[in-house]
Amino acid sequence: MFDPASLRLCLVTDRDLSLGRSLIDVVGAAVQGGVTMVQLREKTAPTRAFLEEARALKALLAPLGVPLIINDRADIALAIGADGVHVGQTDMPVETLRGLLGPDAIIGLSITNHQQISSPDAALPDYLGLGPLYLQQTKTNAAAPLGVEGFRTLRAATSKPVVAIGGLKADNSAPVLAAGANGLAVVSGIVGAADVKGAADAFTRLFDH
Amino acid sequence: MFDPASLRLCLVTDRDLSLGRSLIDVVGAAVQGGVTMVQLREKTAPTRAFLEEARALKALLAPLGVPLIINDRADIALAIGADGVHVGQTDMPVETLRGLLGPDAIIGLSITNHQQISSPDAALPDYLGLGPLYLQQTKTNAAAPLGVEGFRTLRAATSKPVVAIGGLKADNSAPVLAAGANGLAVVSGIVGAADVKGAADAFTRLFDH
Repeated sequence: MFDPASLRLCLVTDRDLSLGRSLIDVVGAAVQGGVTMVQLREKTAPTRAFLEEARALKALLAPLGVPLIINDRADIALAIGADGVHVGQTDMPVETLRGLLGPDAIIGLSITNHQQISSPDAALPDYLGLGPLYLQQTKTNAAAPLGVEGFRTLRAATSKPVVAIGGLKADNSAPVLAAGANGLAVVSGIVGAADVKGAADAFTRLFDH
Repeated sequence: MFDPASLRLCLVTDRDLSLGRSLIDVVGAAVQGGVTMVQLREKTAPTRAFLEEARALKALLAPLGVPLIINDRADIALAIGADGVHVGQTDMPVETLRGLLGPDAIIGLSITNHQQISSPDAALPDYLGLGPLYLQQTKTNAAAPLGVEGFRTLRAATSKPVVAIGGLKADNSAPVLAAGANGLAVVSGIVGAADVKGAADAFTRLFDH
């Protein structure tokens, strides 16, 4: 069952940005730093490798009460009993996904503009991921950055819980929270940090104020 | 429910080899030529596009009684009510897949050598796909061709129904059937033919003798 509080600090994994460290090591350190939800994202791994990673993460996170969400792949989520699935605009439609996963699964949907947030599909997930907030060196095909004011306007168009994503660092995220984000979804700002736990700690402290 | 007779002439789709023709046009013509099962294979399409293709094929094939199998993706199969899933050695293990799809789904597994056919996983699917039979110009990362004698030896290692795959044309497939194949799985030999229905007809005639 979805608790919006779990959106506070969402780690989105990225194998290529993890400086060669294992997924389990990176996620383990990030959770020690206060990550409240993990989204496993694999865009090129074969299904079997993806499944094995997901199963290992589930074993790590379930005892800690940290929800595990799978990017795009409902089959992987169903096979390992993940807590939900996060989809983008070219992934499975939310209604179809809900039919596969059932009413208790957490479903998130990525949104990059006003047209998407006004579509019927945007009314169906448990939360929305809005972004990208800032320019990202690591994602060459990303939509134009919203910036804080763009985010504020887009956020006002929905009553759903939202996480902000895209180029977030501890030192540029406070205005995003002030603009109405329920949480922060972080990729390179955590997995690409030399000190993963320290980077997650710094994000966590933003919520202490 | 699985009927081994449906393995006789399996069409495996390939967008890149279809000479720019639509999937529906190619599969429709192939079925007119006697194709008895269709496997939808998409290795790079986004999930939503894959899903829409699968749904369109299901609408085409279900009224004709031709089973539709999805390559690799159990989520797509579940979402559209496909008849089954075909997996390779780096896809989801058959036992996991069976748990997702249930007892009535058709599950096929690709096998390229004796080690794979001796593994416990090879005892679980409804049928095995053995190959590649012949050299294929179109698949650069394929295993070494079995040839007819290699196929015959591998085929003898299992009591499962098997389809042969890999470089099959109407004029090189008769010895493969004589060596114990229950059916032929064909990619470029049908989807890449200028006359798709005619190419399927030629394969179909192999079964008349």
